[in-house]
Amino acid sequence: MNVCGSLALAMEEQAKVVGAAFVDHYYHLFDHDRTALISLYHPTSMLTFEGQRIQGADHISAKINQLPFDQCHHVISTVDCQPSAFAGGVVVFVSGSLQLEGEEHPLRFSQCRCFS
Amino acid sequence: MNVCGSLALAMEEQAKVVGAAFVDHYYHLFDHDRTALISLYHPTSMLTFEGQRIQGADHISAKINQLPFDQCHHVISTVDCQPSAFAGGVVVFVSGSLQLEGEEHPLRFSQCRCFS
Repeated sequence: MNVCGSLALAMEEQAKVVGAAFVDHYYHLFDHDRTALISLYHPTSMLTFEGQRIQGADHISAKINQLPFDQCHHVISTVDCQPSAFAGGVVVFVSGSLQLEGEEHPLRFSQCRCFS
Repeated sequence: MNVCGSLALAMEEQAKVVGAAFVDHYYHLFDHDRTALISLYHPTSMLTFEGQRIQGADHISAKINQLPFDQCHHVISTVDCQPSAFAGGVVVFVSGSLQLEGEEHPLRFSQCRCFS
């Protein structure tokens, strides 16, 4: 394997590590301390949630904290990670289900997060 | 609205237009002329498909063309687009269903595409 091949593999491994760490941390906070998710967003972050675009950590945090349920539990089915087109960037794609307290059936969800 | 606000809105509108055009074109080709999808990938493109990472237009095209079905029909449910962190970049998130010829029930799918 040449240097470019080794570098590409290293970037893929890095993307996998970053993605897995993000997923563990993000959904753990979501299920146990939702207000703390604000630390994972920046002033320029944008969240599109069911078609609604929300910009900035404060607004995104407010949206997440105002979701119409309290206790929830995410079960992750798949985590796909790959390097983005920009040095050090990572794209993470997550799918799974969301069990809400008092609801019989879980909701399916998928989420994509791009890190720069 | 100040200049930054106007610029942000213009970027969001641009993302929406690019995303909608991509979705129309990509899934039309997928359903009617799958081999032509190679034109929508570059040598550095990466596709993660059901956990498998595939790099480069040629390999991605080969993977798509070797999927174990012929006729298919995508029905798009949602298209979310937003500017990425990089000037001119767009993130498109698509969900929908995939009806395969001869199958009674459609498959649910979701796909994320990042343009730089």
